[in-house]
Amino acid sequence: MFQQRTVRLECGKATHVLHVLGTQLNVKLYRCAPPGSQFFQVKCTNAVQYQISPKVSSTSNNMLPLEKSLSLSITMIAPSKHASDNKVSVSYFGDNLEELGKAILHLTSVELSLDVDADRDGVVEKNNPHKGSWKWGPNGHGAIVLVNCDMESLVGTKRDCDDDSLSRLSDLKDMSRMVLRTNGPGQLPPGYKLVLHISLSDADKIGVFQTGKSVLIKSYPMVLGRKTLSYVVKYEGGTAETEFFVEGRKFLDENFEGLVTIYLSLLQPSTKGFPDTPIFTDKVVFHMAPWIMTPNTLRPLQVFVCSTTDNYSFLKDMKELVKQSGCKLKVCHEYMNRGDRWMQDELEFGYVEAPHQCFPVVLDSPRDGDLKDFPYNELLGPDFGYVTRVALNEKVTSLDSFGNLEVSPPVTVNGKEYPLGRIIIGCAFPTTVKGRNMTKVVQDFLWAQKVQAPIAVFSDWLSVGHVDEFMTFVPAPNRKGFRLLLASPDAGYEFFRGLQKKGHGKAKMFEGLKDEEVTVDQILSNKQFQQENAFVQNCIDWNRDILKKELGLEEEDIIDLPILFSLKRDKRAVAYYPDMVNMIVLGKNLGIPKPYGPKIDGVCALEKEVCSLLGGLGLNFFFIDDFASYHKLEGEVHCGSNVQRDQFSYKWWNMAL
Amino acid sequence: MFQQRTVRLECGKATHVLHVLGTQLNVKLYRCAPPGSQFFQVKCTNAVQYQISPKVSSTSNNMLPLEKSLSLSITMIAPSKHASDNKVSVSYFGDNLEELGKAILHLTSVELSLDVDADRDGVVEKNNPHKGSWKWGPNGHGAIVLVNCDMESLVGTKRDCDDDSLSRLSDLKDMSRMVLRTNGPGQLPPGYKLVLHISLSDADKIGVFQTGKSVLIKSYPMVLGRKTLSYVVKYEGGTAETEFFVEGRKFLDENFEGLVTIYLSLLQPSTKGFPDTPIFTDKVVFHMAPWIMTPNTLRPLQVFVCSTTDNYSFLKDMKELVKQSGCKLKVCHEYMNRGDRWMQDELEFGYVEAPHQCFPVVLDSPRDGDLKDFPYNELLGPDFGYVTRVALNEKVTSLDSFGNLEVSPPVTVNGKEYPLGRIIIGCAFPTTVKGRNMTKVVQDFLWAQKVQAPIAVFSDWLSVGHVDEFMTFVPAPNRKGFRLLLASPDAGYEFFRGLQKKGHGKAKMFEGLKDEEVTVDQILSNKQFQQENAFVQNCIDWNRDILKKELGLEEEDIIDLPILFSLKRDKRAVAYYPDMVNMIVLGKNLGIPKPYGPKIDGVCALEKEVCSLLGGLGLNFFFIDDFASYHKLEGEVHCGSNVQRDQFSYKWWNMAL
Repeated sequence: MFQQRTVRLECGKATHVLHVLGTQLNVKLYRCAPPGSQFFQVKCTNAVQYQISPKVSSTSNNMLPLEKSLSLSITMIAPSKHASDNKVSVSYFGDNLEELGKAILHLTSVELSLDVDADRDGVVEKNNPHKGSWKWGPNGHGAIVLVNCDMESLVGTKRDCDDDSLSRLSDLKDMSRMVLRTNGPGQLPPGYKLVLHISLSDADKIGVFQTGKSVLIKSYPMVLGRKTLSYVVKYEGGTAETEFFVEGRKFLDENFEGLVTIYLSLLQPSTKGFPDTPIFTDKVVFHMAPWIMTPNTLRPLQVFVCSTTDNYSFLKDMKELVKQSGCKLKVCHEYMNRGDRWMQDELEFGYVEAPHQCFPVVLDSPRDGDLKDFPYNELLGPDFGYVTRVALNEKVTSLDSFGNLEVSPPVTVNGKEYPLGRIIIGCAFPTTVKGRNMTKVVQDFLWAQKVQAPIAVFSDWLSVGHVDEFMTFVPAPNRKGFRLLLASPDAGYEFFRGLQKKGHGKAKMFEGLKDEEVTVDQILSNKQFQQENAFVQNCIDWNRDILKKELGLEEEDIIDLPILFSLKRDKRAVAYYPDMVNMIVLGKNLGIPKPYGPKIDGVCALEKEVCSLLGGLGLNFFFIDDFASYHKLEGEVHCGSNVQRDQFSYKWWNMAL
Repeated sequence: MFQQRTVRLECGKATHVLHVLGTQLNVKLYRCAPPGSQFFQVKCTNAVQYQISPKVSSTSNNMLPLEKSLSLSITMIAPSKHASDNKVSVSYFGDNLEELGKAILHLTSVELSLDVDADRDGVVEKNNPHKGSWKWGPNGHGAIVLVNCDMESLVGTKRDCDDDSLSRLSDLKDMSRMVLRTNGPGQLPPGYKLVLHISLSDADKIGVFQTGKSVLIKSYPMVLGRKTLSYVVKYEGGTAETEFFVEGRKFLDENFEGLVTIYLSLLQPSTKGFPDTPIFTDKVVFHMAPWIMTPNTLRPLQVFVCSTTDNYSFLKDMKELVKQSGCKLKVCHEYMNRGDRWMQDELEFGYVEAPHQCFPVVLDSPRDGDLKDFPYNELLGPDFGYVTRVALNEKVTSLDSFGNLEVSPPVTVNGKEYPLGRIIIGCAFPTTVKGRNMTKVVQDFLWAQKVQAPIAVFSDWLSVGHVDEFMTFVPAPNRKGFRLLLASPDAGYEFFRGLQKKGHGKAKMFEGLKDEEVTVDQILSNKQFQQENAFVQNCIDWNRDILKKELGLEEEDIIDLPILFSLKRDKRAVAYYPDMVNMIVLGKNLGIPKPYGPKIDGVCALEKEVCSLLGGLGLNFFFIDDFASYHKLEGEVHCGSNVQRDQFSYKWWNMAL
């Protein structure tokens, strides 16, 4: 449908109007008719088309009878070469066909189009009919903008989106191209203006830069943003393109659904002292790219660990594993980690993607241990983005550490597809109001990203309270492409009872570890310990049922690993021996905490059991000794490492939300 | 799909489980098998059904081969009469078919259902499969709750929803009935509990009362709400119903989309010191009813006006109009209005509706003139609700008066239906950041109601800045069922030029009004005045184009009334003579400001013109003299009155949103 505009003619006077190609002008014919008018005639030049409605039949003299209800709609078929190069005239006649007056409309036509990559192919097409709206899915449409949350400059201190000037020309790669295409006479009639504008509520969400005349950064001014809601664009004349670059400045969040709109208005001058009148408005819509997490099934790129005074052998094992997995090891040294070894907990790696650009983005936890400066100071940089959430009026607990934030591989649940998997967050028990929880500000952020709809599971039963203490995902060649591994005290008791039955009751756990050794018989005879593990199994079974339902899993998709827990004084659980489910997954290589199980024929029976349980999946097992440096501090391999992974090949905007 | 729950068996030990009818229990068969088990058998009582997956074939001895992957799923077909009246046993056998052990599961089955009126027929049906979700439309589902914003007690001071105790039994009519239906043994096994609970984020949105054993108000306690997130419900035994009533406490708003959830959980006792485990959860969802405005085309019920020291003749005219229109006149006296006569501006009438109840609700404007106490003190009462929005950190301007808030009759726009019409809000010009606007807090509230999607028009060009100064809707027997009336300076000039042409140039406007008289010739000869009106016409034309687009109107749906404006020193407009479009519409009777136009043959030519323009619509015209008491104070009939109207027969939940 045409954009329509009411215009007023006056008899005996020439009216000049600037017309935008593709719109329609409406004239109420009776309004300017001289008193006594009975008939009228309309004439126009070549590039003009008109219609009278309701339809009237002409008399024998080629006259049309004037009725109160008549309106004249005018469209044009080509842009003007010169100002006022087309016209429409309406002549009015009296009873005796004498001419009573004539109104002339001089028309200048201009073609205007604010353009973006609304079909998501990386190219800014011309006047996409869907550019002003957003639709999810493979048949969807709508342009995409990235939060420009990296820092292009190597000497900078601010993220690019926190800076109102361009730091380097290469920063334009992180922005979405937007083009104003115009076609018309050499100049607009006096006083007319083209204005780009945004609403106040969008002003903190995007920034728009105009392409400069030179390669100097200063020649790329920011023209729309926090401080500037409108900008007059120079009309170039003839066929012209004016180029802009749009950056995102705010991630999706509780109060931001993701859409921002940029308007182009053509303003007609008004009487002095009155605001100019917009006579045409075009608009483009952008969707802010969500922050996307990467599950264990994606290819690992870099592994991050901390070096401390006491973890030399752990580091050595990790180096070997990472080398064999074909990715890079990045060691965060003591001057930076200040003794905080929990690399998993301080940050989560993810990425943002648009058709024209994709880069990793670290989510910095409000945990803020001694590692707190690492994400901003060491990770943020060119094409490496940074985002954080600050807890206000909320207590930050151990559940805010990102060992408590994981994501599943892609799943389909009752026909509903989650091609980017689902985020998993550990929470307090759903029926208790008390208990620890991840801060609302982080949970809100995660929910707002939409494309990896979170699942809340119950992790507050654990002393540390992280989901990675009882679950992980490993790749698999069959079924859904992965298995869910769950810690299982039942499987643990089954394992130890089996050993006892086979006559290994005197075999020792923790052999060679001072003050730690304990026999299979001793473990099995402890009734209190057995009760504690029954409680833990109930907690994990509760999560098992949730995960089956929310990820659409069957029993065959789950593997129970034999892990025993013990309860601390506050009745919260910690792993009794190194928690093998708390592993690092690098492609087909698993880095598993060395469990220090009873040795049978010189071989650790727990290691053997886990290899057997995971057999047939084509995985390789690396048992890493984290006993003294991590396990005794209530963490394991996964807690002490972090993996930056490749993005999904699947594009988030193709999701049917 | 069944809700599933993992249960654990132990050989040589009886396990007692409470099972909820319609759910499924899963047992991993290998978990409790004694070492050496090769075969197993399952036996069960009559009301139990079981399935083993993956499927296995029995040997010739009726034995089933035990495999690690096997699980047993158990369902039941009837509720229990007594505790543990059903059982399942699993026997394990060794290589030589010797029995190695037997695990027995004792089952007690109970039927539980938390029920609401999810099919929206006013009756609480049993276990509607859609009770846990919401869907808009005639084929939709989901229960509805009203914000209990009236005040049932005649001696109260608080709205019912602001009070945690029931004020009168009649208040239950304003709430949604919810029933817990149970069927099972006389008692639940020891330690099991039925708990109703809500999330923290829903706690300020609803309140739940339990039906008492007597008619005493005190016996209806509030069991869920702001202070109580969970409530243990007594299990009654046998076939029983426990009745609750749910009230809404918060209107839809920027941060509240309208859905609230109430959960029923069955809690299993855990080891001492640990939280009870929910083994079954049912849920019901309610949608908060939106606040709905009533357009001019709905039947008027009551008309509200203020009496002041100077408006006796206006009141007399209004009384006559209201009487002839068959509705009630309510006069707000001076002790209450304190000289503030702008009844339109302080409040807007609307209503809320659910299948079981519907009542009017007044929206109190943040304008807060001297009438500010009227809505709360005089209107709020039994089955008359009240809601307001308070502006924080925002300047309240004249655009916050509700003469600037109107609603269209039902429309269809490009195939999209708005069966409850669309709200119309006057705003600053879209390209200016400056200018007055309705406060965000009120605009957010209006947008959040969803069912009458607002349209922003431009009203800041007017000195008072209200949409009712240039537009209104009147009922019509044809086309869309209404006409949009617009003030039109062009129609005004056309009218006066016509008079001049017919020789009435010396006829006088404002005849008989001291110091006001002016001739038609004088009006037409004032060039400055003409320029001002051209500007006004442009402003109204801009709105005309928006309204045509957003309401799907054609030229034939619009009638231009001859109104002239003049500009004040700040270049903002006021009506030059009484602004006839600023009328009150009561069914087919229009109460129009008496324009004081030139008299031709003793008849006001402006009145005659308007009657002629609106001819054929079956309307009756009452010209009301508001010159001194309203027009000179920059308001008119509409500004000085307010109409409470009947609700739509159309139900808002049938909208396809």
